[in-house]
Amino acid sequence: MKILILGADGYLGWSMTVSLAMENHKLILVDNYAKRKFMKKLKRSPLHEMPLLSTRLKALFNKNRNISSYKLDCSNYNKMKNLIKKYKPDAVIHFAELPSAPFSMLNNFYGWETLQNNLQSTFNLIHCIKDIVPDCHIIKLGTMGEYGTPNIDIEEGWLNIKHKNRKDKFLYPRQGASLYHMSKIMDTDLIWFYVRNYNLIATDLMQGPVYGIYYDEGIKDDNFAPIFTYDDIFGTVLNRFIVQGVVGTPLTVYGSGTQTRGYINVVDTIKCIKLTLKNKPKKGELAIYNQFTEQFSVNELAELVVSSLAKISITASIKKIQNPRIEKEKHYYNAKHSNIKKMGLQPLKLNSKIINDIAKYVMKYKKNINPNIIKPKVNW
Amino acid sequence: MKILILGADGYLGWSMTVSLAMENHKLILVDNYAKRKFMKKLKRSPLHEMPLLSTRLKALFNKNRNISSYKLDCSNYNKMKNLIKKYKPDAVIHFAELPSAPFSMLNNFYGWETLQNNLQSTFNLIHCIKDIVPDCHIIKLGTMGEYGTPNIDIEEGWLNIKHKNRKDKFLYPRQGASLYHMSKIMDTDLIWFYVRNYNLIATDLMQGPVYGIYYDEGIKDDNFAPIFTYDDIFGTVLNRFIVQGVVGTPLTVYGSGTQTRGYINVVDTIKCIKLTLKNKPKKGELAIYNQFTEQFSVNELAELVVSSLAKISITASIKKIQNPRIEKEKHYYNAKHSNIKKMGLQPLKLNSKIINDIAKYVMKYKKNINPNIIKPKVNW
Repeated sequence: MKILILGADGYLGWSMTVSLAMENHKLILVDNYAKRKFMKKLKRSPLHEMPLLSTRLKALFNKNRNISSYKLDCSNYNKMKNLIKKYKPDAVIHFAELPSAPFSMLNNFYGWETLQNNLQSTFNLIHCIKDIVPDCHIIKLGTMGEYGTPNIDIEEGWLNIKHKNRKDKFLYPRQGASLYHMSKIMDTDLIWFYVRNYNLIATDLMQGPVYGIYYDEGIKDDNFAPIFTYDDIFGTVLNRFIVQGVVGTPLTVYGSGTQTRGYINVVDTIKCIKLTLKNKPKKGELAIYNQFTEQFSVNELAELVVSSLAKISITASIKKIQNPRIEKEKHYYNAKHSNIKKMGLQPLKLNSKIINDIAKYVMKYKKNINPNIIKPKVNW
Repeated sequence: MKILILGADGYLGWSMTVSLAMENHKLILVDNYAKRKFMKKLKRSPLHEMPLLSTRLKALFNKNRNISSYKLDCSNYNKMKNLIKKYKPDAVIHFAELPSAPFSMLNNFYGWETLQNNLQSTFNLIHCIKDIVPDCHIIKLGTMGEYGTPNIDIEEGWLNIKHKNRKDKFLYPRQGASLYHMSKIMDTDLIWFYVRNYNLIATDLMQGPVYGIYYDEGIKDDNFAPIFTYDDIFGTVLNRFIVQGVVGTPLTVYGSGTQTRGYINVVDTIKCIKLTLKNKPKKGELAIYNQFTEQFSVNELAELVVSSLAKISITASIKKIQNPRIEKEKHYYNAKHSNIKKMGLQPLKLNSKIINDIAKYVMKYKKNINPNIIKPKVNW
């Protein structure tokens, strides 16, 4: 297959690239390095500096020479059009979005940056696919955060509604908790607009927070590792807890810690996307899968990290701090996620070994950890 | 009251301005003349050239000197911030959006122009209100087109959903039929995000297509008339039918003509907005009203125009042409609109006299009519 990967330098984009490069595909990689640029601007460093995409690609080229790579901003329509005209991909995997809720809530500038970048990149992509390769399979990363925390069960993307003895099927009602999440809702609305009106083919993966280092157990070369962030803006909760445990500061739980979400290992994320590549929807169909494998409250995650680290002789503690986010702390949460199982995913459940493998990786770069970028500085 | 009107040069913005200028308000007017600019660029002229806002304001100043006017692009955050800091309005009426479905579907450029302008203007406005005058009443114009044509009754903005023995209340599910409509859906999502998280105060008016010349029966000076468009991009269906009747060409019905929508006279639109000014929601409440007074199919409208024009000796005919739009032609449509009646609106129903008053106005400028800009040239 000819596969276009947008956002190939990012955490998931890079993991996906390495995984697909091991198979017999033509890969076209795109990134504008916006996340690197904004991390630098906001003085948030990853655990260790990632080699540039070009450096990392050299290592990959030893395994697969069928890769083309471009520094390109997907919000530039003409450049996107020329690229898609040149390669006419069979599938495109769209990771080219600014991924952070706190980033989007920093101020008007970063809020608009998130809305504009994510929406315009998605708009340009779909517009080009419609005009140039309407049979191309668009695989877009959404987020479970689009649904928010409704008081009813979260279905997979769609909801059949019966109202006054009539019925219809709609996109499941969405309400995000940050401008980042709002931008992803707008993406979903836009992709459904084009799919239903122009018979495009798309899969939208509503993903929970991802954890893990390597997309595959077989590869442990740090040149292939994706970016690992643990800071207040770009980090995710499990990474942060493990880093806090390793440096010997308390694991900071925001608010009551009863906030519940669905989580997934990066190994499973990559497997899911590869399964969706093999399960192309029909023309005019938007397939939506909730891409997570298990639900945890923040308290449960913190306790699991503490008990896991204890097994490798790290004593960690938990501290509750004021919640910097506007979110419901006590809420109902029951989200369906059976489509990925139906496609054949055997979920990798979070356990002490996985947590401690991450902890060992963190320990290797312990001297790089900057404790000043962990405490939340963005309030909304 | 201190009232900020965004988009004061437009059809509704100007009607609103004239109407409020007759009362004891401080008015701050804003427009960037984008619609004039794009109409010129696309060679779509209105029925007659509108005097510039400055010229029209001179006439208004005779009646009310408490008006300030700015040429300002609402997508410029710093300019918006300075304006709102300077005036600290009690209410803002937000018309500053690109208003045309065909315009948004012309190509990638105009599609993004619509998404970007409408979303960024709304985002900047709400952001400034949150930071500077959180008690200000935001009145935003939405569109009935946000709902699309669902197979269930259209409620007023919200839907109570019962699912697997649990329940919650959501924004009514929306699916627009053009990028313009999608931009308005995104606006609604965004305003609800800010209202629920920051306790802002907002009214969102889901308006049907508006017709009519003067906001009030008392004023017949053409210096006060709002813009009248009848072309394929900026015109609305009733205007177009009347112009086609006056010039003696058939009224062109797109497709089967069974498409049904809710319509409203501009007199009622202005009354509704003035009623919402008096009915400020509570903090944290987004009030949504469906702002139309009666439903018609396109066929019914065409037949009403033909029978009305016959009374002033104009013989008109109807011709069905291929539908340039992607839309359901046969569909269920039953939209609630009782909130505006509850506020006290006595609806002005469409009748032959109203149609023929518009026809007489059109006849006055008959020599300006350009028949080449009526036939639809934008297909989607």
